[in-house]
Amino acid sequence: MFEFEHEREELLKNIEDLFSRKQYAALRDLLLPLEAADIAFLFDDLDERVPVLFRLLPKELAAEVFVELESDQQELLMQGFSNSELREVLEELYLDDTVDIVEEMPANVVRRILSQCDPDMRKSINEILKYPEDSTGSIMTTEFVDLKANMTVEDALKRIRRTGPDKETINMCFVMDQQRHLIGVLSIRTLLLAEDDDIIGDIMETNLVSVSTLDDRETTALALSKYDFLALPVVDKENRLVGIVTVDDAIDVLEEETTEDIELMAAMLPSDKPYLRTGIFETWKARTPWLLVLMLSATFTGIILTHFEGALMSCAILTSFVPMLSGTGGNSGTQASTAIIRALSLNEVRFSDCLRVLWKELRVSIACGVCLAAANFVKMMLVDRMLLNNPDVTPMVALVVCMTLVCTVICAKLVGCSLPILAQKIGFDPAVMASPFISTIVDALSLLIYFRLASSILGI
Amino acid sequence: MFEFEHEREELLKNIEDLFSRKQYAALRDLLLPLEAADIAFLFDDLDERVPVLFRLLPKELAAEVFVELESDQQELLMQGFSNSELREVLEELYLDDTVDIVEEMPANVVRRILSQCDPDMRKSINEILKYPEDSTGSIMTTEFVDLKANMTVEDALKRIRRTGPDKETINMCFVMDQQRHLIGVLSIRTLLLAEDDDIIGDIMETNLVSVSTLDDRETTALALSKYDFLALPVVDKENRLVGIVTVDDAIDVLEEETTEDIELMAAMLPSDKPYLRTGIFETWKARTPWLLVLMLSATFTGIILTHFEGALMSCAILTSFVPMLSGTGGNSGTQASTAIIRALSLNEVRFSDCLRVLWKELRVSIACGVCLAAANFVKMMLVDRMLLNNPDVTPMVALVVCMTLVCTVICAKLVGCSLPILAQKIGFDPAVMASPFISTIVDALSLLIYFRLASSILGI
Repeated sequence: MFEFEHEREELLKNIEDLFSRKQYAALRDLLLPLEAADIAFLFDDLDERVPVLFRLLPKELAAEVFVELESDQQELLMQGFSNSELREVLEELYLDDTVDIVEEMPANVVRRILSQCDPDMRKSINEILKYPEDSTGSIMTTEFVDLKANMTVEDALKRIRRTGPDKETINMCFVMDQQRHLIGVLSIRTLLLAEDDDIIGDIMETNLVSVSTLDDRETTALALSKYDFLALPVVDKENRLVGIVTVDDAIDVLEEETTEDIELMAAMLPSDKPYLRTGIFETWKARTPWLLVLMLSATFTGIILTHFEGALMSCAILTSFVPMLSGTGGNSGTQASTAIIRALSLNEVRFSDCLRVLWKELRVSIACGVCLAAANFVKMMLVDRMLLNNPDVTPMVALVVCMTLVCTVICAKLVGCSLPILAQKIGFDPAVMASPFISTIVDALSLLIYFRLASSILGI
Repeated sequence: MFEFEHEREELLKNIEDLFSRKQYAALRDLLLPLEAADIAFLFDDLDERVPVLFRLLPKELAAEVFVELESDQQELLMQGFSNSELREVLEELYLDDTVDIVEEMPANVVRRILSQCDPDMRKSINEILKYPEDSTGSIMTTEFVDLKANMTVEDALKRIRRTGPDKETINMCFVMDQQRHLIGVLSIRTLLLAEDDDIIGDIMETNLVSVSTLDDRETTALALSKYDFLALPVVDKENRLVGIVTVDDAIDVLEEETTEDIELMAAMLPSDKPYLRTGIFETWKARTPWLLVLMLSATFTGIILTHFEGALMSCAILTSFVPMLSGTGGNSGTQASTAIIRALSLNEVRFSDCLRVLWKELRVSIACGVCLAAANFVKMMLVDRMLLNNPDVTPMVALVVCMTLVCTVICAKLVGCSLPILAQKIGFDPAVMASPFISTIVDALSLLIYFRLASSILGI
């Protein structure tokens, strides 16, 4: 693994230098010891040199690098491939990787890929493509080791040796009956530690954890992570084994889903490309809609402020605490909603915990609110009144501000924790109910509380 | 895997029922087919019944369940264990799990654990405990399969069969020379697919990816995920192999680090416990400090507003757009900072990309700002002026608000994208520079711009 900043820069310079001097053998020797993921990362900055460099790689490494490239680079490369080159790469790929690539390509490239696959492969690709985008079926592979319950360990090992090279993993083996129902799983470790004449049916694990093709891919990835499995069998509605999901794909899913959550929480539409590879227009398109909605919904706070214009005029100092109140309200709400959204996505909190969550947030918010109000009272008296010498900041004004603060924090935390749970219950992504959305609601609430308290305590 | 909501409730009811009728054999049969992680999850709600239930489990499953329990439950169980019970559980645990447990326990429990371990184990635990908390050394295990380069495949398989049961994984094997330097790695797949008389030195992979004991554990976990490895060798300063990190631990690290990032981004101090298991006081302690800092720093926006009190008095309608401006500024900044923080933590963006990021955000922010300003102008004219019949909303006022909007969005996005990168450069966690912090800065900036524009355009 090279340390990014310096080693990578140096390698890039070396490659460009050798390239310009057409030292292709030296280039090949330079690339060979690197990991596929690192070569793909280098290719990011090598643009029009990529096709030549790619052809220097040995077949197997080339395929591994191909899988790691961004889809626009894959497309570019494929457009330059002859049919036989394309076939060579496709032959080296695992089925699930091929499907991932096919999903990202425009129709004409897909047609070319399918025309160069062998018929079995084409059938499998088409089958996997049929599953909905976020389903487990769409990330599974059908290339797994299948055994029969009546085999001996010796038979099983022979079968693995014969069919293993084409399988995505041999670390987990799956046992099926005549109707292809899943009846057991077996790790390669169990196989190796068993006696040669042990019967698979006797040593296999029959307490099965399996997922269904239509399960959400995130649920499946979380299950793999929770049970520390290396692969999870995927069954259809009749409990027939149709594929497996491996841990490396699960990690990718978890990473993508987390990025999606984080983007939603920051009021962006999720994108599936790395930051620097997303164009200006795409980024703009992902960011503007929510900004627009939130901006327009601030109309309500504007109306509230206009409505209380008289009160503000007669006690102008009140205005100067509005940003502090709405900021603190927003931050308090963000804390609660973020904590809940994360807990929901890790399955730590469920809808049935709703009351426990509310009760907890109520107590936390009272503690936070009182503590902040006390600090704020001291600050208003010492800094605003004495240090900045502002006689308008009377103890009564401070009282109004501090009481509003307590109420705002309580409202913010209760709204913040309940909206994500409700959103999930009615089938929305809870991440949408994050800070920006909640801040907007809490802004309006805190202003209403502020002016209500001001008018009753200060008599304006 | 049981579906949480209903199956779990039902199981709990069954267990409590059998428990009250002392049907221990039936209880055992009920628990046996479940996965360890699921049993641990059930134990969450079974309180004082846990010690009895735990003793019903067979030794191996009991140890697996023990690892999955929360640390307060582990402590409770251990306090009830006799020395021989404790020893039995410890014998079944993998080294890295034992270390995790020891790290969470109070001193007296740690002493008891260490006194019940065999001397080798005790030595290994103490060694791993010496590594800093977030280092790779602290999450590695020393129980790996080591081979010699001059072994044949047959020898190697024999060795794995003999020593395998005590190893964390046999899927990856590591080849060392006499001085324990790492010279090669080998997957169990390569071993199985090779001929019996092949020599390990000839078939092992010598392009090595390894990490160092002092590397950050997140870097190591990201490397495992990037290269799709099942285990990564950990070497000391002299390149001697001292341990391995397995993919299941890497997933846990990635999950924890992401949660930490998300908590920091929402202005909370990170906690390592699930939401519902954190006490009120702990949650309060994690949330109040940042709320307090951000509240007090809002003093600046207060001062700005007080400073422009005269202007506000002469054109009161300006006040009603303050929440919209600061909200939009905050949201725009949040979008940029969140995108950058995530990209930094996935290693997609580095410090050297700083100018590219700024250039991108500048263009996006102009596009967003202009678009929002146009929408806002139309809205102010149609809704505020005509529909709400507010004659104070003149085209000139709308112009001031819209120009401020454009400037605010640009400032917010530039501040939002640059602060996280700077924070990382000077060694802070970029996640701290997220929405709440940036909103506070942008609030002050947008008010200054607002009043500056208002006074020059409206002449107040």
